[in-house]
Amino acid sequence: MQSLQAKASEWSGVNQDDAFAIDDDNLFQKLGLQTFINLSTNFYTRVYDDEEEWFRSIFASSKKEDAIQNQYEFFVQRMGGPPLYSQRKGHPALIARHRPFPVTHRAAERWLHHMQQALESTPDIDADSKLRMLNFFRHTAFFLVAGDELKCQNQPPSCKHGSSNQLPSKTS
Amino acid sequence: MQSLQAKASEWSGVNQDDAFAIDDDNLFQKLGLQTFINLSTNFYTRVYDDEEEWFRSIFASSKKEDAIQNQYEFFVQRMGGPPLYSQRKGHPALIARHRPFPVTHRAAERWLHHMQQALESTPDIDADSKLRMLNFFRHTAFFLVAGDELKCQNQPPSCKHGSSNQLPSKTS
Repeated sequence: MQSLQAKASEWSGVNQDDAFAIDDDNLFQKLGLQTFINLSTNFYTRVYDDEEEWFRSIFASSKKEDAIQNQYEFFVQRMGGPPLYSQRKGHPALIARHRPFPVTHRAAERWLHHMQQALESTPDIDADSKLRMLNFFRHTAFFLVAGDELKCQNQPPSCKHGSSNQLPSKTS
Repeated sequence: MQSLQAKASEWSGVNQDDAFAIDDDNLFQKLGLQTFINLSTNFYTRVYDDEEEWFRSIFASSKKEDAIQNQYEFFVQRMGGPPLYSQRKGHPALIARHRPFPVTHRAAERWLHHMQQALESTPDIDADSKLRMLNFFRHTAFFLVAGDELKCQNQPPSCKHGSSNQLPSKTS
């Protein structure tokens, strides 16, 4: 079986080294807490206002303020800052905590679309940090898609999300 | 539904603050890489030699050397050292990566038994670090038991591991 990270690299087009180049620098020290809060606020403002109802509805069971806090606390912790997320919620356990949501290829691309816009329009994020973060986010989004598919192991075919959400089959 | 971390605290008897007191100090700087390698080597030597066949067999599909490396790289990364685990394997995704294994209450207790022995018999781990690590390990072991039970959501009762592995029902 192809590993989670191998699938993440293949589907995202981002290799492991580029995905974790966030660790070659301390982005928290470089950018500061407020920039992470601004980024997540910017991101979820777009998500909760998304004109695409199928995507917006994925977040309907969570309060926007909670989604923002969960996200920036995780980013801060993962990018060199204090472990805010674990102090409050424990291990990130990224795949398990995304289990309630349909993390399809299509949803990953929509998430990344909003995150790219959020990164572009949040002040004080330099181009180098932006690139590292985008690579990390892209790889992670598809890591979660790979994790989502674990839910369907030993399940009937109806477990799969609608066929429009599946990765197109390869022709080469 | 009770959250993963609430279950982990209840079943382990270790609250969130004590579990993540590993973050109040930099244990990697205090103990050094070799101590983490020694601890994991010591731990898995006990596990792979366990007289309890049911527990030993959980690890039979993995090479001992790989188990040691996965573990100490994760510990180093989580306890203030370089992100060795993610550079090689990506996100820890603790619950998803333990999915192939039957992480029952009984298995968690056996894991902790060996880890306590390993901590006691690995040189150069001071009492304070030992206590922080034990609390972290105990909470994490039961966090994984809580995660293991997610596998059985929407599954037939036969999905549950043998009744001898279940938490005794509460009488008070």
